[in-house]
Amino acid sequence: MPSLLDLETPVLVLDRCKLDRNLARMHEHVHSLGCVIRPHVKTAKSIDVVRRSLLGEPGGITVSTLKEAEYFFEHGIQDITYAVGLAPNKVEHVAALIQRGANLTVLLDNLAVVASVAQGARAAGLTIPVLIELDVDGHRSGVAPSSALLLEVARAVKSAAGLVLRGVLTHAGSSYDCRTVEALRQMAEHERSGAVSAADRLKAAGLPISVVSIGSTPSVTFSRNLAGVTEVRAGVYVFQDLVMAGVGVCALDDIALSVLVSVIGHQSEKGWIITDGGWAALSRDRGTSSQPVDQGYGVVLDESGKPTRDDLIVLSTNQEHGVVARRDGESLSPAEYPVGMLLRVLPNHACATGAQHAAYHVVEGEGQEVLEVWPRFSGW
Amino acid sequence: MPSLLDLETPVLVLDRCKLDRNLARMHEHVHSLGCVIRPHVKTAKSIDVVRRSLLGEPGGITVSTLKEAEYFFEHGIQDITYAVGLAPNKVEHVAALIQRGANLTVLLDNLAVVASVAQGARAAGLTIPVLIELDVDGHRSGVAPSSALLLEVARAVKSAAGLVLRGVLTHAGSSYDCRTVEALRQMAEHERSGAVSAADRLKAAGLPISVVSIGSTPSVTFSRNLAGVTEVRAGVYVFQDLVMAGVGVCALDDIALSVLVSVIGHQSEKGWIITDGGWAALSRDRGTSSQPVDQGYGVVLDESGKPTRDDLIVLSTNQEHGVVARRDGESLSPAEYPVGMLLRVLPNHACATGAQHAAYHVVEGEGQEVLEVWPRFSGW
Repeated sequence: MPSLLDLETPVLVLDRCKLDRNLARMHEHVHSLGCVIRPHVKTAKSIDVVRRSLLGEPGGITVSTLKEAEYFFEHGIQDITYAVGLAPNKVEHVAALIQRGANLTVLLDNLAVVASVAQGARAAGLTIPVLIELDVDGHRSGVAPSSALLLEVARAVKSAAGLVLRGVLTHAGSSYDCRTVEALRQMAEHERSGAVSAADRLKAAGLPISVVSIGSTPSVTFSRNLAGVTEVRAGVYVFQDLVMAGVGVCALDDIALSVLVSVIGHQSEKGWIITDGGWAALSRDRGTSSQPVDQGYGVVLDESGKPTRDDLIVLSTNQEHGVVARRDGESLSPAEYPVGMLLRVLPNHACATGAQHAAYHVVEGEGQEVLEVWPRFSGW
Repeated sequence: MPSLLDLETPVLVLDRCKLDRNLARMHEHVHSLGCVIRPHVKTAKSIDVVRRSLLGEPGGITVSTLKEAEYFFEHGIQDITYAVGLAPNKVEHVAALIQRGANLTVLLDNLAVVASVAQGARAAGLTIPVLIELDVDGHRSGVAPSSALLLEVARAVKSAAGLVLRGVLTHAGSSYDCRTVEALRQMAEHERSGAVSAADRLKAAGLPISVVSIGSTPSVTFSRNLAGVTEVRAGVYVFQDLVMAGVGVCALDDIALSVLVSVIGHQSEKGWIITDGGWAALSRDRGTSSQPVDQGYGVVLDESGKPTRDDLIVLSTNQEHGVVARRDGESLSPAEYPVGMLLRVLPNHACATGAQHAAYHVVEGEGQEVLEVWPRFSGW
């Protein structure tokens, strides 16, 4: 196999040892709380990563697009939850996947979609399983667990020919904004109790609820009680990233993904290193800009993934240029970072950085040998 | 052909009328100044767009990656300038393209790369044409027009077996930060005079300079004099975008690119519309955040690209969710934006938004018919 040193940069690198450690840690934690995990495959979009993620689990996954559903179904995974509120123009595609044998469950939070998906189900002569989206933190979409609308939507699903009500699902997206362990634990419990109370209300109203699905990487990581929850969902834990490190979910050393870049020049007056890792390779994600430590466009390590002598970050990017500088603004010595030198950049947001690339170059630890190349996809 | 209304969202839409108008306007302007344009294909990464861009031009293009060089060479374009400082690990690839017949010119700004590319040229038994990168505005990379280093690098290129010195190239990237017409005109003239003075210094030193290449969409647009310049480069002018509108380069109505999204729900308490156009479809680019008018993740129009009754922007995004709200924070009526309704989002940064998609769905004006589907690519 080739070495990382032989490749044209930029290159997306995945450390399989860190990946496996992240997977094992999360599984152990969730199992210790008596629950199972339904990995969100939107982060990796790779069958190789997802197969590893499913080790020891019943085999269900979460997707954010029907392209993900289709791809993973074609790679042998039947049990799929599409965790984005269904758009009417996707109902036909959902029906086609179910017709082909996928056990695909959809998500909705309003009566208009109940009508639309029920019509699609009847037109295709099949039954579509449905989860109702809950909003526990005002983050995005969903109905409030205590609302009248929850019962209204659930009853509409229950009584619609072509639909089968499976349960409730929530995503405490505001867990990303928590800044202390205590706040994270509270958010995790708030997410759990909100979903369980909604499920209890529906059950008390005679509605059949078998799924109570919650999760985000931060809230699952800091959960201490999953009573009443049937599954947790998380995505970014497989790779981790700087945003997760900023939240306190992981250490920098847990981040399995990095972008290998080359030094292509210097701007000596400003103390900058210029690399070929621009936003096309790193993504435009600046998720750490709202955190206590702003990591620019990423933390810069040496070619084997170890910290350099200087504390370097990617200060700014153009499409195919990265400007690397010391965090403290002090000048660095160009001679220590000669043209052609390789550096690795840890991503702010693994989902966004991954999405800029067509494959993972798999290494183990500080090894430079590319052990495997795992394809990944994007789009819809 | 299908209608936009029949497609699964999100979908990248290109208005061919606006594209052609943008192309014609720029050509006319550059020709009126006695110059030619070498379009930067990194924006579109589409042979269909690039063929239209080249109408009436000698046929040369600018690329930001060797994948672009390879792709467009395979689609019949020989004259290619690779306008990112060359990394040593790409020299072999450059040589292979030249061996196959590409008239590929590379860019460098330091002696280390002179040595590396000369060695590669000799190893392959061919000659590699070189431009020297100039830094006229401290934006990124390049040598100062008045520096001793300029002469040193130029002489090294001139005397290196395997290399041929073609000229100088600069990119006034800080033109993006100009806020007045006067500042833009000054920056355009500063870019021109810096490049011409560097070329004059080199010529005076007996060095052969046939190319003086400058440009960025803002500086070219506001140029009033291109004396001494042999070509201008610009990329984003083909589509235009909200950042360009914020700089004053174009009007909103000139923006040829948009993302078609569906309403999938509402968060009525907050007055939000939830769509299926998240950052995966729009990109994470927040280029307007540093401009006087922050456009969020994009300006929202109706399904045919006309303004809606409310002044809507994409307030925030997750991977496959967009949160749309009125700019003034006032609540909107969910009933006016029912589930299933289509909306179009104008991009902050056409290069970044385009990069999230695999194809352009081509329409004309307010027509909904998809006249053609033009593939585009990403990666390296």
